[in-house]
Amino acid sequence: MTGGLVIMPISGVPEVRPGDRLAALIVDAAAGQETPLLDGDCIVVTQKIVSKAEGRLVALDADDGDARRRLIEQESRRILRRRDELIISETAHGFVCANAGIDLSNVDDGTAALLPVDSDRSARDIRNDIRSRLKISVGIVVSDTFGRAWRRGLTDVAIGVAGLAGVVDLRGSTDAHGRELHATEIAVADEVASAAELAMGKAAGIPAAIVRGLDPAWFREATVEELVRPPAEDLFR
Amino acid sequence: MTGGLVIMPISGVPEVRPGDRLAALIVDAAAGQETPLLDGDCIVVTQKIVSKAEGRLVALDADDGDARRRLIEQESRRILRRRDELIISETAHGFVCANAGIDLSNVDDGTAALLPVDSDRSARDIRNDIRSRLKISVGIVVSDTFGRAWRRGLTDVAIGVAGLAGVVDLRGSTDAHGRELHATEIAVADEVASAAELAMGKAAGIPAAIVRGLDPAWFREATVEELVRPPAEDLFR
Repeated sequence: MTGGLVIMPISGVPEVRPGDRLAALIVDAAAGQETPLLDGDCIVVTQKIVSKAEGRLVALDADDGDARRRLIEQESRRILRRRDELIISETAHGFVCANAGIDLSNVDDGTAALLPVDSDRSARDIRNDIRSRLKISVGIVVSDTFGRAWRRGLTDVAIGVAGLAGVVDLRGSTDAHGRELHATEIAVADEVASAAELAMGKAAGIPAAIVRGLDPAWFREATVEELVRPPAEDLFR
Repeated sequence: MTGGLVIMPISGVPEVRPGDRLAALIVDAAAGQETPLLDGDCIVVTQKIVSKAEGRLVALDADDGDARRRLIEQESRRILRRRDELIISETAHGFVCANAGIDLSNVDDGTAALLPVDSDRSARDIRNDIRSRLKISVGIVVSDTFGRAWRRGLTDVAIGVAGLAGVVDLRGSTDAHGRELHATEIAVADEVASAAELAMGKAAGIPAAIVRGLDPAWFREATVEELVRPPAEDLFR
């Protein structure tokens, strides 16, 4: 087999508290399960533990609909749609998602986790910290679980990247027939987040995964803006 | 490592012609590269070779904008948006995508590949054929490359499934804090398609991949309708 991928969930990460260094927790947990990180790996880290480590927790009574709505509006720069309790909005980062990405699951009762202020910075910090500790270069994707227009079910996407492309532009490449390929800008960081989610599961509390075997050409400096369609380009907001 | 995934591209599939049995081509190619299919695998097969095998090819001069537009309209049941040459429409299957899923790359000059009439049936045929040949049970995902609202870059999604859930409903499960999880219907077949795409690449002409290690609970009878949001539920069309 050439060109294959391996995706390994990282279990054994302890409960994350504000101020924790995620890189240390991830490196130790990966070593503890005998899947040490290697140069060229991409590490996918869920938003939830990034938000916890960065103290992005606020008090919220999940049963208080008004408080919930106020918090979502505060975390949004634009409301796109409302239906019953559901609010689809655009966050300060430009992400369009339900409830401004505010998370009520896997946090303590009476609290909610907000999105990181700058998930690219969060990703860069983890990347730099892993480089210092292990002398290896890895890509980092901070992932979150978003809904989609038109399709049912949620998928994980990238809300922050470091050292890995958000989008790889294959336009201008030629296909197997020598014809120029059109419209093949692939959202590799989103696909990496989705692939990792398959291995992490949702209820098991696994907050990170190693994705090994990605094309080396995809590892470069990047920001999540590559993945955010500007409103002027967007036909659906 | 427990719970890991392995994704293996299947290369060596010959050029597909109308009437070809895809299962035979895939089984032989996988055996030829020493990654034989195993019970419990999921095989991701790209729309392009399914459309070719099913003879869903029509003559089209790619430079004739009017002919292109007529074909897209003919393959759509509803146009959602137009901008310049781009048409976002809903296909007869209910998929919302660009250009009704009509594909001009990796087919012969002067032809275009339409979506399969019924990709679930295509997937079922491949699944049944593999079961007959190898006496194993596998899941099948027929994948295609779609754009998204709000986010840049394309990702692969499922347009047909057999033997694998489209969406896995984790609602009612409890998280690591014993709190009930909300809104965790995960589009596993779409995530499987995306994961496979990372291994297949676009220009290399690799038309299938093995995804090994998926949760056995996800293998069941299913249709792609699980992944199609009905217009009445959809806030964005």
